[in-house]
Amino acid sequence: MNEKSITHPFSSIGDDKFHDECGVFGVYGSDDAAALTALGLHALQHRGQEAAGIVSFDGTHFYPHRALGLVGEIFSQKEVIDTLPGNFAIGHVRYSTTGETVLRNVQPLYADYSFGGLALAHNGNLTNARLLHKDLVNQGSLFQSTSDTEVFQHLIATSSGEHLLDRVVETLREVQGAYSLVALSRRKLIGARDPVGVRPLTLGKLGDSWIICSETCALDIIGAEFIRDVEPGEIIIIDENGLHSHKPFSQTSKRPCIFEYIYFARPDSNIDGHNVYEARKAIGVELARESFVSADIVIPVPDSGVPAAIGFAQESMLPFELGLIRNHYVGRTFIEPTDEIRNLGVKLKHSANRQQLKGKRVILVDDSIVRGTTSRKIVEMVRQAGAKEVHMRISSPPTMHSCFYGIDTPEESQLLAANFDVEGIKQQIDADSLAFVTIDGLYRAMGETNRCSETPQFCDACFTGEYPIPLTDLDDGSAMSQMSLLAELA
Amino acid sequence: MNEKSITHPFSSIGDDKFHDECGVFGVYGSDDAAALTALGLHALQHRGQEAAGIVSFDGTHFYPHRALGLVGEIFSQKEVIDTLPGNFAIGHVRYSTTGETVLRNVQPLYADYSFGGLALAHNGNLTNARLLHKDLVNQGSLFQSTSDTEVFQHLIATSSGEHLLDRVVETLREVQGAYSLVALSRRKLIGARDPVGVRPLTLGKLGDSWIICSETCALDIIGAEFIRDVEPGEIIIIDENGLHSHKPFSQTSKRPCIFEYIYFARPDSNIDGHNVYEARKAIGVELARESFVSADIVIPVPDSGVPAAIGFAQESMLPFELGLIRNHYVGRTFIEPTDEIRNLGVKLKHSANRQQLKGKRVILVDDSIVRGTTSRKIVEMVRQAGAKEVHMRISSPPTMHSCFYGIDTPEESQLLAANFDVEGIKQQIDADSLAFVTIDGLYRAMGETNRCSETPQFCDACFTGEYPIPLTDLDDGSAMSQMSLLAELA
Amino acid sequence: MNEKSITHPFSSIGDDKFHDECGVFGVYGSDDAAALTALGLHALQHRGQEAAGIVSFDGTHFYPHRALGLVGEIFSQKEVIDTLPGNFAIGHVRYSTTGETVLRNVQPLYADYSFGGLALAHNGNLTNARLLHKDLVNQGSLFQSTSDTEVFQHLIATSSGEHLLDRVVETLREVQGAYSLVALSRRKLIGARDPVGVRPLTLGKLGDSWIICSETCALDIIGAEFIRDVEPGEIIIIDENGLHSHKPFSQTSKRPCIFEYIYFARPDSNIDGHNVYEARKAIGVELARESFVSADIVIPVPDSGVPAAIGFAQESMLPFELGLIRNHYVGRTFIEPTDEIRNLGVKLKHSANRQQLKGKRVILVDDSIVRGTTSRKIVEMVRQAGAKEVHMRISSPPTMHSCFYGIDTPEESQLLAANFDVEGIKQQIDADSLAFVTIDGLYRAMGETNRCSETPQFCDACFTGEYPIPLTDLDDGSAMSQMSLLAELA
Amino acid sequence: MNEKSITHPFSSIGDDKFHDECGVFGVYGSDDAAALTALGLHALQHRGQEAAGIVSFDGTHFYPHRALGLVGEIFSQKEVIDTLPGNFAIGHVRYSTTGETVLRNVQPLYADYSFGGLALAHNGNLTNARLLHKDLVNQGSLFQSTSDTEVFQHLIATSSGEHLLDRVVETLREVQGAYSLVALSRRKLIGARDPVGVRPLTLGKLGDSWIICSETCALDIIGAEFIRDVEPGEIIIIDENGLHSHKPFSQTSKRPCIFEYIYFARPDSNIDGHNVYEARKAIGVELARESFVSADIVIPVPDSGVPAAIGFAQESMLPFELGLIRNHYVGRTFIEPTDEIRNLGVKLKHSANRQQLKGKRVILVDDSIVRGTTSRKIVEMVRQAGAKEVHMRISSPPTMHSCFYGIDTPEESQLLAANFDVEGIKQQIDADSLAFVTIDGLYRAMGETNRCSETPQFCDACFTGEYPIPLTDLDDGSAMSQMSLLAELA
Repeated sequence: MNEKSITHPFSSIGDDKFHDECGVFGVYGSDDAAALTALGLHALQHRGQEAAGIVSFDGTHFYPHRALGLVGEIFSQKEVIDTLPGNFAIGHVRYSTTGETVLRNVQPLYADYSFGGLALAHNGNLTNARLLHKDLVNQGSLFQSTSDTEVFQHLIATSSGEHLLDRVVETLREVQGAYSLVALSRRKLIGARDPVGVRPLTLGKLGDSWIICSETCALDIIGAEFIRDVEPGEIIIIDENGLHSHKPFSQTSKRPCIFEYIYFARPDSNIDGHNVYEARKAIGVELARESFVSADIVIPVPDSGVPAAIGFAQESMLPFELGLIRNHYVGRTFIEPTDEIRNLGVKLKHSANRQQLKGKRVILVDDSIVRGTTSRKIVEMVRQAGAKEVHMRISSPPTMHSCFYGIDTPEESQLLAANFDVEGIKQQIDADSLAFVTIDGLYRAMGETNRCSETPQFCDACFTGEYPIPLTDLDDGSAMSQMSLLAELA
Repeated sequence: MNEKSITHPFSSIGDDKFHDECGVFGVYGSDDAAALTALGLHALQHRGQEAAGIVSFDGTHFYPHRALGLVGEIFSQKEVIDTLPGNFAIGHVRYSTTGETVLRNVQPLYADYSFGGLALAHNGNLTNARLLHKDLVNQGSLFQSTSDTEVFQHLIATSSGEHLLDRVVETLREVQGAYSLVALSRRKLIGARDPVGVRPLTLGKLGDSWIICSETCALDIIGAEFIRDVEPGEIIIIDENGLHSHKPFSQTSKRPCIFEYIYFARPDSNIDGHNVYEARKAIGVELARESFVSADIVIPVPDSGVPAAIGFAQESMLPFELGLIRNHYVGRTFIEPTDEIRNLGVKLKHSANRQQLKGKRVILVDDSIVRGTTSRKIVEMVRQAGAKEVHMRISSPPTMHSCFYGIDTPEESQLLAANFDVEGIKQQIDADSLAFVTIDGLYRAMGETNRCSETPQFCDACFTGEYPIPLTDLDDGSAMSQMSLLAELA
Repeated sequence: MNEKSITHPFSSIGDDKFHDECGVFGVYGSDDAAALTALGLHALQHRGQEAAGIVSFDGTHFYPHRALGLVGEIFSQKEVIDTLPGNFAIGHVRYSTTGETVLRNVQPLYADYSFGGLALAHNGNLTNARLLHKDLVNQGSLFQSTSDTEVFQHLIATSSGEHLLDRVVETLREVQGAYSLVALSRRKLIGARDPVGVRPLTLGKLGDSWIICSETCALDIIGAEFIRDVEPGEIIIIDENGLHSHKPFSQTSKRPCIFEYIYFARPDSNIDGHNVYEARKAIGVELARESFVSADIVIPVPDSGVPAAIGFAQESMLPFELGLIRNHYVGRTFIEPTDEIRNLGVKLKHSANRQQLKGKRVILVDDSIVRGTTSRKIVEMVRQAGAKEVHMRISSPPTMHSCFYGIDTPEESQLLAANFDVEGIKQQIDADSLAFVTIDGLYRAMGETNRCSETPQFCDACFTGEYPIPLTDLDDGSAMSQMSLLAELA
Repeated sequence: MNEKSITHPFSSIGDDKFHDECGVFGVYGSDDAAALTALGLHALQHRGQEAAGIVSFDGTHFYPHRALGLVGEIFSQKEVIDTLPGNFAIGHVRYSTTGETVLRNVQPLYADYSFGGLALAHNGNLTNARLLHKDLVNQGSLFQSTSDTEVFQHLIATSSGEHLLDRVVETLREVQGAYSLVALSRRKLIGARDPVGVRPLTLGKLGDSWIICSETCALDIIGAEFIRDVEPGEIIIIDENGLHSHKPFSQTSKRPCIFEYIYFARPDSNIDGHNVYEARKAIGVELARESFVSADIVIPVPDSGVPAAIGFAQESMLPFELGLIRNHYVGRTFIEPTDEIRNLGVKLKHSANRQQLKGKRVILVDDSIVRGTTSRKIVEMVRQAGAKEVHMRISSPPTMHSCFYGIDTPEESQLLAANFDVEGIKQQIDADSLAFVTIDGLYRAMGETNRCSETPQFCDACFTGEYPIPLTDLDDGSAMSQMSLLAELA
């Protein structure tokens, strides 16, 4: 469709992380609705860097602007913001889960319904999207995207509910999976979080304007006041009469994603009562307690390993140093090196301070090991810079299982921890020693005495394989089926 | 949606014509399906210059490429053609009728149905699109474009027909208006022409490959053999078993658009048995017979007035000369002149040969007068170049009514002939004399003895106001209703 | 230098013509200097379609805007014209002779000198540029372009002349070749034409503003009055005291290029006293007299063959018809056809009207045959459309020699007429008969009784091989030497 | 010249730093010369983010590629590197000092000379460029850029020296100022550092290939071995016979820029024997000794304040914490906020961790205060996040004077420290206390016992006003004169 498709950012430069896939933001009742949304999305940029979009409403029309790229690139011009008039807006940053990142999949999605227009954006992933998709097509619905978000749209369109709320409730009863969504109709701003509460969603106020967004950092950037987290299973409706809370689902136990604290969320956000930076430091403290080793310095793998490394250093009384420098000018792509150059072991994203590391026993702190490719290069880089010993400490348990709730994870066959035990991983990355924080250490860092094995306090499926929400499409095999006969890249 | 919107090409430089709005092309069974379609669309470029698209099918996937611009710009690269594999393809050139020219309205449209994928493109305009649109939305269909073409898609999707042909027939029974469409499913190339046959559609063969396209000039460019015109009310299905013709509608009298011969179609095309160039010359001959005036030279307004001027000159025994030069480098836009410059009477698109015109009595031949703006400037330009007399002769009757069958016409209030009689128009454009060909002269030029007033042989509604197909939306007032709450330009 | 390089426009679609390489335009003393220059360049677009530029002066600064593309693309925005303030401007359209069409070669060139700034643009080609270039580099001049225009700049910079006029005269004494140049200093608009007057240069007035430009059509577009042609060897200086004419060179006989009348110039221009359209018709008349053949219709190869065909048809009393249609939507590039498609004999630029040509004896009139590739295709196309006989008539003598005076011509080895006699060419293009106008017929059409063999009235070197200006670089072999160690395409 | 001009990156988001202006890199004798240069420039990206360029030589031609943007954007494609063949290359990253950042000013500059081609790039700034420029223009040299680098080119071109080395020496005798340059002729790679050695320049080897570059981090990224720093006043020539060192200037005392250690250089580089990260930590230690204050936590202003903050925290035994989060997705531009939004105190680049800062006494460590705008906002942000006290500590002395040696500094009137004493600055930024490291503390951190007042060991003119190289143009008033009559932005 003449649409640019982009590949995984940084993919060529060794990013070896799980990736959060979306952030959402909505504002009700501000003269600067679109500008505030752009700022909020900018604060949520870490949740998705492939594309961004805003839909505003001015009382008469809905105005969309969606594009591939960063928020600061897409919404940097006053002229663009001026094309998004009105006091109501929702926005979205995207990192693709289902569906290629082509423009037709970029959210918020918009459609005209019999009851009027509705724009919708969500963070998460439906686990029965393909089943629902098939049913809807058989009934005559025409899908335009391959995003699971469109399932929400068609369920709302074909719902027999009289009022919008009825249609939304009926829709949410149909879908399974993780979702934190915002939607905007002609009269209402809607927020909803799945019954388990996998992804965060939070509520704030700026003067008389209401804000619903993924993380509190998006409230801070605009100076909005934090009100409370949206509760798992809660539907929030904001209209001219104020805020209404609906809880149409039978109570289930809340299990928010614990990896948000380890890596996904921004350190200055608070999620469900925990400060993310403090949580990371606390994990570093537990890690130091569990797996101290005699060394000269503690070095973080920047930038995500820094808080845990500070916690580790403080607990172990070892000096915290910046032995690895991150090059912040690495853009989305970089030179595809020739074989000769690749053999030089070039590291574009990080560099080691030789002077700093020479002859030292180094504890290297990182937040996770996924495929292990980056870890191996980092250890090698630290050794080549002259370190005498390299001890790797990881502020998460081994990641052994894929996530189906809105996180981009490799297949299990590519997860190092699904194929090797800790000793094996140590050998793969060629460290002198290696330790992961234990699952109980992780729960202790979160303020729990231990993990409750019957009803765990968090979703930790990527560590334990215990999935709190049914994986219907996967079990059904339909995850494999072709979503569209339309070739994605054209 | 981050989509570029373009304004009417040439609008700032005084194009004062009706505009045909689309051309279609489809090929079944060629290794070069996409390349042939690109060439065919290039030959049909005069039917739409705003956007173009091709969808191909390779036995497994459908491949789309659509963009704003000219065919030669969009499909000029081998790399682009290579993204359109397969032996089956349909294509479309567009000049907007309904819906803004934003990318989501560019055809062919594609959708996944329960029976598989289907791509569809049409030339024409539905006169009950808004009524059908409203019904479909009420039943839960979500529209993505504001093009009337999408109505076809949803009718096919929600049809209860078992086979594709059943669904197509059921769909065509619902729609009113002018349409010449091509569609491509996984197994079939489909062509259909409305029961009145307003827009042309023709059938050809290139070796074993079948071609369906708007005009024969698209057959000539690829060296294909002309087989026959698709008949009004006929549905053509081409599949592995060859060509099948279906005529599900009760017989109505055929009334193809007579303006295709006057201006829209390419002079080298043959439509429903008439050569367009010969028809134009014949109109010029009739015009000379009806309204000869003593003069020194016959000058066409280039390029569309040339064949009628040649006919006029031959019949009147006056010399045919090129007194007006057309600047072929005028692109889609040009400088917005300052007031000073505008007063200089700048003509960017044409220039007069002063040496040629000085002291002469000039007969100026053009094909039509719409708003009259260009005619006035042309007459002035010829006078300023020194002509002693300027006699304007028009190879169509006065255009007094809007077209609702796929032609872009101004509202009646802007049509000069809807507001002035011939004498009034003459004064408006400041000519020494003015004559239009009569409606009977026009029919004579087409080989008829006269216009059959009960069942006219052609659609001539723009001259006579007699509309052969009901204008349901217009009569209903729904042509005024808002098609989408989504602002077009964003 | 990150500059886009473009290939010969139309090259892939069979343009087989000589190409004029430049047009110039200058205005002194108008509030709309840049806008008038843009309009003038638009009228001169046929003299160069690869790039265009304007430099204006507002009393303090010089403002440049140069780019690859058409005038209407580059200067279509008011915002662009607004970046070119001031009452003085010169402009240039370019079709490359020497130097690749990269941005650094696009004119007008500008430089700061000890006496102030000077912008300069020229139409023509120096025949001792490489020799002068070498001398200047040895003396410490640094060249930035590979355009011969830069030689003018360095000669002016290193001249010992006290006043600008002295420097210009000294410079023009050094250079050999064809040039019609305009230059703009802080106080003066300068125009100069080489002593032989190969390329046209004309003088006009618009109110109190002076205009110097390549052709009168550029005066007409802005409504300016034609004053007179600049004379061969004349230097015009316009400043606050009005126009001053200088003729510093000893008298030589004037020999303007005769091919300007045959093909290069616009039909509505008058050059050195001749109207171009009338000249072309007169050549057609002579051609009919010299080589009449019994036939049914006269068909021009559009668009350049039209005036001669009209002349031929009038003289021979045969009907003039448009049997070939030109597709005006062919852009700068088009699809590179696959082998299969190429064999279909696709013609993107022209199409034949089968109905018109079937069974006819056709006289085909074109202005020239260069390589013969297009002629062969056109003849084949006319035959395939059903013509019984195809007689080719050419309104120029055989082009047997290259031009070194500012026209892009193939090497002689590629000129069909340099390798075959008329009978051989006839066979190459597969015509039933072929005739070129004779050199004397051509001179008769220009109003001369015959060609004066001692001092011919025109430069006709491409037909006769008699070059009126020395080809110093060529004779020297330095035309072969490397102009720069810098690779052009980067 | 149709060239894009860009504004200061981050300017709208409150970057308040001095800026280094260039980095250079050259390689002699590698199959991957251009790719290595791209990698080296990537490592030097912090020295200039506005534009980058590479010129390579393949034994026959020089190949340039220069563009505005980041190295990773410009040189990310294999296709681009493939346009830069050969075993020799030099490159440059640019942050404008003199001359606008338009393409014609982007280095390396190239010219053809009588002796062949030469490409040249430099880091620094000439202090007599305008004087030399005027002389050269008077002698007939034509300047194409407004960069002082072009002065080198014309001096070399007009030099009477027989050999290239003679010409370079003669040129360097003429120029005054700071320069670390690399140049590439057909046979030689040249490196030169001004007699005072203001900007760094270093020498390395990768196998048999020689590397000359601005910082050692550019050696590390390609795995090259550090050989030694190029000495002040040294000219290095590398050719097929290896490395030759020339010292044509009389001995002057070396005074490298001390601000390279404070902020400009990358922390992992070693310059003239000092590791930059260690130097910064040592400054933090000195700062803690000089101006300790009782507090709860030490917080760096990320990222540049981190090493000094670590040093400060270690020396003061206070916990080092990340209380400010930097948003790494801030691109070159961002939304121009409306007044309402601006009043919200939006901080796009940093955010404060409220949870972390609430109720704390905070020591905030930054490297410098220039205008003070960012410092004021940061202090305000920390207070709004709930800090009880905010004590600002700066790891440089007050910056009271402009730099004329290749650093972009505001005029003195805009330097906060040129207008206020420490108490005044404290009030301006609204801190509870403020201290700068002393000039002697700074020298102690660099390993000196104190600053030698007669012949200081470093250039510290921005703190002391003692300029080691004459400011000829400035004293002459010619810094004010117009460099070109050509308007920059066109």
